[in-house]
Amino acid sequence: MTVINFSKINYKKKRDRVYYKSVTGKDSQICLMKLEKGEKTDHSHENEQLGYVVSGEVDVFIGNETYTLKPGDAYYIPGNTRHGFHVKTENPVEYIEVFTPPKPDNVY
Amino acid sequence: MTVINFSKINYKKKRDRVYYKSVTGKDSQICLMKLEKGEKTDHSHENEQLGYVVSGEVDVFIGNETYTLKPGDAYYIPGNTRHGFHVKTENPVEYIEVFTPPKPDNVY
Repeated sequence: MTVINFSKINYKKKRDRVYYKSVTGKDSQICLMKLEKGEKTDHSHENEQLGYVVSGEVDVFIGNETYTLKPGDAYYIPGNTRHGFHVKTENPVEYIEVFTPPKPDNVY
Repeated sequence: MTVINFSKINYKKKRDRVYYKSVTGKDSQICLMKLEKGEKTDHSHENEQLGYVVSGEVDVFIGNETYTLKPGDAYYIPGNTRHGFHVKTENPVEYIEVFTPPKPDNVY
């Protein structure tokens, strides 16, 4: 399957406040994430991560830098770099996450 | 620079009818592309490609399959697979392209 209409498939629940849709290739993976108010992460992984905010707003820290991301903002998180997302707004944030290599726990 | 506000930077012209903004990592690259009416491509490259349509509409063929992509649609093009995009609408299409590994000609 090479085309997936994200708007016609349901989000899968990853855990409380975190939902995803994704397409997984051989070397990389594109996810549409939905994070709800209160979600706050702090971790690192070997996978390189790129992204783009579709709707809503989210605070992100990448290493020692902190940003508020809004629709149209893109970001890059090198592999093995501590980072986290924090949703402070009432509305959820929807954003693209790209992982290289793919993350098994994000396969749809 | 780990965050780039695409909405605050200008598109760069790649060629007639094709414009881009991008963030390039070590292993992968995320591009926001804008293609104008009449743009039609037919090529293949070793880079794996994933994407997501932000606005507008575009026809794509991937191998022997053809689709019309609209906002919210995602796609996957394996490396070394013939594919092409064709814009038939008056309005341009804007969509995310992710390349693994990065494409030098898409570095912003």
